[in-house]
Amino acid sequence: MAVIVPFESHQSASIDRLTALLAPDMERVNATILARTGSDVTMIPEVANHLISSGGKRLRPMLTLAMAKLAGYSGDGHIKLAAAVEFMHTATLLHDDVVDESDMRRGKAAARMVWGNEASVLVGDFLLGQAFKMMVEVGNLHCLDILSTAASVIAEGEVMQLGAAKNTATNEDEYMAVIRAKTAELFGAACEVGPALAMKDRTELAACRSFGMNLGIAFQLVDDALDYGGKSAKLGKNVGDDFREGKITLPVVLSFRRGSDSERAFWNRTLAEGDVRDGDLDTALGLMQKHHALDDTIGRARHYGAIATDALALVQKSEIKTALEETVAFCIARAH
Amino acid sequence: MAVIVPFESHQSASIDRLTALLAPDMERVNATILARTGSDVTMIPEVANHLISSGGKRLRPMLTLAMAKLAGYSGDGHIKLAAAVEFMHTATLLHDDVVDESDMRRGKAAARMVWGNEASVLVGDFLLGQAFKMMVEVGNLHCLDILSTAASVIAEGEVMQLGAAKNTATNEDEYMAVIRAKTAELFGAACEVGPALAMKDRTELAACRSFGMNLGIAFQLVDDALDYGGKSAKLGKNVGDDFREGKITLPVVLSFRRGSDSERAFWNRTLAEGDVRDGDLDTALGLMQKHHALDDTIGRARHYGAIATDALALVQKSEIKTALEETVAFCIARAH
Repeated sequence: MAVIVPFESHQSASIDRLTALLAPDMERVNATILARTGSDVTMIPEVANHLISSGGKRLRPMLTLAMAKLAGYSGDGHIKLAAAVEFMHTATLLHDDVVDESDMRRGKAAARMVWGNEASVLVGDFLLGQAFKMMVEVGNLHCLDILSTAASVIAEGEVMQLGAAKNTATNEDEYMAVIRAKTAELFGAACEVGPALAMKDRTELAACRSFGMNLGIAFQLVDDALDYGGKSAKLGKNVGDDFREGKITLPVVLSFRRGSDSERAFWNRTLAEGDVRDGDLDTALGLMQKHHALDDTIGRARHYGAIATDALALVQKSEIKTALEETVAFCIARAH
Repeated sequence: MAVIVPFESHQSASIDRLTALLAPDMERVNATILARTGSDVTMIPEVANHLISSGGKRLRPMLTLAMAKLAGYSGDGHIKLAAAVEFMHTATLLHDDVVDESDMRRGKAAARMVWGNEASVLVGDFLLGQAFKMMVEVGNLHCLDILSTAASVIAEGEVMQLGAAKNTATNEDEYMAVIRAKTAELFGAACEVGPALAMKDRTELAACRSFGMNLGIAFQLVDDALDYGGKSAKLGKNVGDDFREGKITLPVVLSFRRGSDSERAFWNRTLAEGDVRDGDLDTALGLMQKHHALDDTIGRARHYGAIATDALALVQKSEIKTALEETVAFCIARAH
């Protein structure tokens, strides 16, 4: 197989190596995704493709492919499992938009703004059904167990987040429990099914899962920091979306706990009571800067990124391992 | 095993025999349902139990148990599969209420009225995840295939219904395609997994599936007729809910197609344009009576009920077979 990206021991913060190594497999995954959103019910491919073709990085399915490669898997099952992982993710996005009443997603109008909440709920259900059908077709019960558990945990995390919504007293552990469930679990499962397909032993599965979980945590932490600045516009999100929706993310948790009484009154008015006035976002950003809340959120992300990298330390050095290490660095470097 | 209901060849329209025969298994299913709605996230058991404990008939899980018994299955897998079928159904109800903006469900406030649309969407997702987890635990890939296919088809049917909503030109075939997908498919799958668990041959699986599909069609037809009268109040629904929501069900399809131009203008104003005034429901009921739309909808239900009964004709006579025949009669007799 041609190695397209030069192999260097020096680590770069990019997913180019991963993308290049997985290009042939990703082409098959993309073809599968397209084929599986097909339906005689025309609204289904319309809604599904609106979101799927708007071009996320496809990081989660790439992790499945990468881990299958790392495990030396030589079959075909990883293609359908990767597509299933992306469908699970897309279904979550569709349902999230309804729950959050979001207007935008990936720089385009959220599907619910074009086709209504109804279509977002139901097409999400359809994609979830298709995801399970593909897993069943692969026929590996261990992989089915990993991914169906993830589906439950993700939904549990979303409900947990709903319960914590607008609660400014949320502490860092509670916040972490939510992002472990709603984000990191799918990263972990996406990684674990690779070696599970290749019938690897428990130790290798645990290492891959740990890599995914910790990368997922780092990814979400950076996302939550980006919502208050950085390159958000490039991600198709508006700066301050989380603020306007009253979401309690780590930058808020840290600012609230480190703030004065009057600052806490500000957070309670804006986030708990939803009374957001002109200039409040600037005030929020100022408080975050004062308390190093964004820097420290990125610092936490670096901590989990390091755990992810160490999780694969016992794996023999290879091109794909380097690509995975660079992916961790890339996810954190997004913050700058 | 003690036979509790006297065995008679004369057919009665009741599910008492089925309920009595399956009582020990249903107790285990109910315990499983309770255990599997448990979560540290307190909103999940609250929302799930609000709906689950409001006491539907549990017809779908009973069908799974009955078909497993009919197939002479002696294992434990039917308990979890029956619970999974009920969870799939409950998840659909939760999502339907959001899509239909319903206020009531089974005579209680719809979950979305108490906990909000968000909770209904996400707890529905959680129950779907738990359903798949239970199927995976049973570990029968054929059953997983049947039920995951059903999940996709159901969602497809719901989207199809959304596309046909308020379209008074919908014809009977189009209406049938929707109810086959959104209702009958789960009845069919619930029945088919019984013999699939017991490793029966294709012919027996096809017979059980045909019984379920046709019973499901009959069940939905009767439901759609009941929405315009009969014992609706007892079912916890309000007479005319479908009318107010602009749903195009068979009673409307028949009345519209058999009506005069001015009658069709009435249906278009009320259902397509949603301009419903005082007295319109009475007018609708009058038109349905004039064109025998409710009687003929029940007549269609009888037709599919007969196909269901004949589907099991080659199965040897037994207590459980009689109970299933009586269940068909019961589902149709609800209309009176």
